[in-house]
Amino acid sequence: MRDHYQEQLDELANRLADMCDRVAAALGKATHALLNADLQLAEEVISEDVGIDGVRDRAEEQAFALLALQAPVATDLRIVVSAIHGAGDIERMGDLALHVAQAARRRHPQPVLPDEIAPYFSEMGRVGVELATKAAAVIRSRDLAAAAELETDDDAMDDLHRHMFTVLMDRDWDHGVAAAVDVTLLARFYERYADHAVAVARRIVYVVTGQMPGPLTV
Amino acid sequence: MRDHYQEQLDELANRLADMCDRVAAALGKATHALLNADLQLAEEVISEDVGIDGVRDRAEEQAFALLALQAPVATDLRIVVSAIHGAGDIERMGDLALHVAQAARRRHPQPVLPDEIAPYFSEMGRVGVELATKAAAVIRSRDLAAAAELETDDDAMDDLHRHMFTVLMDRDWDHGVAAAVDVTLLARFYERYADHAVAVARRIVYVVTGQMPGPLTV
Repeated sequence: MRDHYQEQLDELANRLADMCDRVAAALGKATHALLNADLQLAEEVISEDVGIDGVRDRAEEQAFALLALQAPVATDLRIVVSAIHGAGDIERMGDLALHVAQAARRRHPQPVLPDEIAPYFSEMGRVGVELATKAAAVIRSRDLAAAAELETDDDAMDDLHRHMFTVLMDRDWDHGVAAAVDVTLLARFYERYADHAVAVARRIVYVVTGQMPGPLTV
Repeated sequence: MRDHYQEQLDELANRLADMCDRVAAALGKATHALLNADLQLAEEVISEDVGIDGVRDRAEEQAFALLALQAPVATDLRIVVSAIHGAGDIERMGDLALHVAQAARRRHPQPVLPDEIAPYFSEMGRVGVELATKAAAVIRSRDLAAAAELETDDDAMDDLHRHMFTVLMDRDWDHGVAAAVDVTLLARFYERYADHAVAVARRIVYVVTGQMPGPLTV
């Protein structure tokens, strides 16, 4: 009985880590679709989001069943509660990747981004995918040093996000208001994606130490 | 012993409802600060956000303690799990009200919004405050008809949000890119605020019925 219970806890963690890998792939594809006006890839991300939502539902059901049937305490309880939070964060990351893909689809066959802006989004995409991939690894390893690394990556994302606003506010911006609106929202999607990845890593710190790291600046 | 447990469950729900009332007040004040370039009121919202975060922390600790010590099942377990989700949603509503206040502070003494845009934000603020106030009432009453009302209010918010984009994309927009960026983000903050209020109401439907209503379109 006890073994089956531990297997269920492991399965829950694996489910979340797999979900992280899926939203990493989603953001990678959405970014590629955005940068290359690739409609087929955008459609792929959009149609796959429902699968990510499904994993979240199953993770939540499993967490609920564990609470109801096993009444976990201490570290085990922290795992289950963190999984409930984590599933919400990771699903939201999937939604944000979906929003990027929807922007690519909405403007197709036009590119969404002015040429000189594209490299920043390429970099935001790279950092975002890395954050989600690292969050998956942290869920599997519960390695606190690896969890701390996500904070540094998130700082890089915040710098890129801030820089986008400097570019937008520059008097030389000559791409018009519609492009500015797109860039504003897209930059925000990447920045929020990163925040959720950091939140996932912080919950793992809490699982291991029993203490939440300081609040995330939003 | 059983009575003390029921008291704790009631206290947890009351804490969340009070938190909803606080973020309703925060959005009301932030909207007033935004529309009237009222720096003092903006500062008030900004300094009060830490108190809302504190209530969230206490709600989460209480939920954790209930799970660990009482091992609730069935409806009681749904109450505790929904409180964990709800506390996250309501804290985020507080963050979004904070972002509105920060925008008012950043541009002070200049108004953030062009004159003809202000009435839409006045309305988004009104709908947002109403959503949070209704969510508080739904937490207290568990009234399913009242919970369903939030969906209609959210549709009104979505319409306002969409309309903002029509105004921004209009060729006659002559307020420049900086104002367009502010309006884009602010409209998004109100729309997300509303989504979180609906999510809180949906969790109450789940508490009562054991079934989650269909997914929120984001």
